Amino acid sequence: MLKRQLIALFPLGVAMVAASAPGPARADPLASWNDGAAKARIVAFVKAATEPGGKDFVPAADRIAVFDNDGTLWSEQPMYFQLAFAIDRVKALAPKHPQWKTRQPFKAALEGDMQALAASGEHGLVELIMATHAGNTADEFAQAVRDWAKTARHPKFNRPYTELTFKPMRELLDYLRANGFATYIVSGGGIEFLRVFADELYGVPPEQVIGSSVKTKYELRDGKPAIVRLPEIDFIDDKAGKPVGIHKFIGKRPVAAFGNSDGDFEMLEWTTSAPGARLGLIVHHDDEGREYAYDRNSAFGKLDRGLDEAGKRGWLVVSMKNDWRTVYAPPR
Amino acid sequence: MLKRQLIALFPLGVAMVAASAPGPARADPLASWNDGAAKARIVAFVKAATEPGGKDFVPAADRIAVFDNDGTLWSEQPMYFQLAFAIDRVKALAPKHPQWKTRQPFKAALEGDMQALAASGEHGLVELIMATHAGNTADEFAQAVRDWAKTARHPKFNRPYTELTFKPMRELLDYLRANGFATYIVSGGGIEFLRVFADELYGVPPEQVIGSSVKTKYELRDGKPAIVRLPEIDFIDDKAGKPVGIHKFIGKRPVAAFGNSDGDFEMLEWTTSAPGARLGLIVHHDDEGREYAYDRNSAFGKLDRGLDEAGKRGWLVVSMKNDWRTVYAPPR
Repeated sequence: MLKRQLIALFPLGVAMVAASAPGPARADPLASWNDGAAKARIVAFVKAATEPGGKDFVPAADRIAVFDNDGTLWSEQPMYFQLAFAIDRVKALAPKHPQWKTRQPFKAALEGDMQALAASGEHGLVELIMATHAGNTADEFAQAVRDWAKTARHPKFNRPYTELTFKPMRELLDYLRANGFATYIVSGGGIEFLRVFADELYGVPPEQVIGSSVKTKYELRDGKPAIVRLPEIDFIDDKAGKPVGIHKFIGKRPVAAFGNSDGDFEMLEWTTSAPGARLGLIVHHDDEGREYAYDRNSAFGKLDRGLDEAGKRGWLVVSMKNDWRTVYAPPR
Repeated sequence: MLKRQLIALFPLGVAMVAASAPGPARADPLASWNDGAAKARIVAFVKAATEPGGKDFVPAADRIAVFDNDGTLWSEQPMYFQLAFAIDRVKALAPKHPQWKTRQPFKAALEGDMQALAASGEHGLVELIMATHAGNTADEFAQAVRDWAKTARHPKFNRPYTELTFKPMRELLDYLRANGFATYIVSGGGIEFLRVFADELYGVPPEQVIGSSVKTKYELRDGKPAIVRLPEIDFIDDKAGKPVGIHKFIGKRPVAAFGNSDGDFEMLEWTTSAPGARLGLIVHHDDEGREYAYDRNSAFGKLDRGLDEAGKRGWLVVSMKNDWRTVYAPPR
């Protein structure tokens, strides 16, 4: 593919990083990673995949890297950020929907019952989103998300949710792209929610965001064409749905996958169980001081089977506490 | 987005075309188009969209061009090429499915009743494909398509179907990409069928092919992960489905759309009814000598409303007979 091949031939991204360094030394593209085994493994993978003539060389067109979002690129505690958005929408729209007082997952949202909400899973989250946005156009939905992000604050850090992306992972995205990889987000969260932020936060354009979705239809509204969101699930991009979403949207098998929970297990398995250079990476949240510590018993982002099997499957488990020099960028 | 921006900054595609010209003059990127109003309109659009500071300048990330495939990038007579593939599969599998003798659209396929097949529409075609490939993995399906393409021949031209792409349109794809456009195929045909050919024939990688699809699931087969095709329609990417597919896969509104039938009407409408530089183009098949002549009454690729409304909507109708110097590249 032309563009990808050009990047491979002219790795300007790398050159630009180097040019912006203060001194004669080349800037470290993974500066927020502590030097150690995890960082070394990532660098070794990229080197192997991009070394012309090397036995693990991956042609530019096949350098596909897939990233989970919640818990992998930004935080997901005390609840998925999109769930915070959905709860705010439920509260705002509740007066028009008295039946929500007794019906789950709406009842839990209105009462702030996180345990019951968590029990409804990502399916429940999608249902909340659908009900609170059915009938709107895609443009109206995106605007509602943008408006919310401007004022909403994370309860622990008192910062906009959009500031709580992981700096080491953003560096990793840049590093992979500078080496000719196409970087995709493959999230259990809503595709139209994520597309509002993905380009600005991660440098991932809308066409490289894959996520859960509602059905939509094309129609004329007041004589103008519009995409309208329907109250019906189209696709759940979680667990075994992730390889399905990857196959549907990309049509190629990735060579690198990055996740943090058992919702990413099949994506990691699909990516790493083919021959050649492959990288599977799990972000382990073990940093109560700077972020959160959770895994096997968490309501959101449960990591259990992944921890058990990472070793035998050759997946790299990254300790947020030990492997990351920085978690978040400082407040703007 | 980094890659797209780099292309905009360094239009190497253009430079490479020029470098490959025999003399000092710059090679015409649209050499298979006769000089005239149609070609001039295309060039003017690209110039307007890419001129920095111009009033119709389109940022590189928004240079999205969408192409129908059947009848727009390759021929679609005497039947959709994928239908020829499906009929060959039905015949091969018929002994195992005696009920097909009396059930449409299988009966029509077995009897060669093109009228009845055409009446079943693209839905019928998708149903044929589903039934003849349910239970196969995606890899097995792609292999069946590749095997078929090696031996199948077009009944009128006695050439492989894959040689019957339109040279002027392939030049147009290259020309747009050299000017920083991302080129997508948005087809009523099957996404997994098209992806087998799209990169080689059109320079369009799998991730930029949108089409009709069956549902798939991820499962372990003999301990190995696989994507398995299910006998259930997932999405019909035709008519009002095309803007829906574009929104789902790309998440942006295109600025240029290329089609040839009323199945492309909504895609053209969605693309051209927003402000700024826009191009809507319809390939009119009026060339019985070199290809086919058909429009309002054709079983495949019917063009009726599009012809009526192209003028008032500002869509460019390209005459294959008058605007194209060449239709197909010579046999290899």
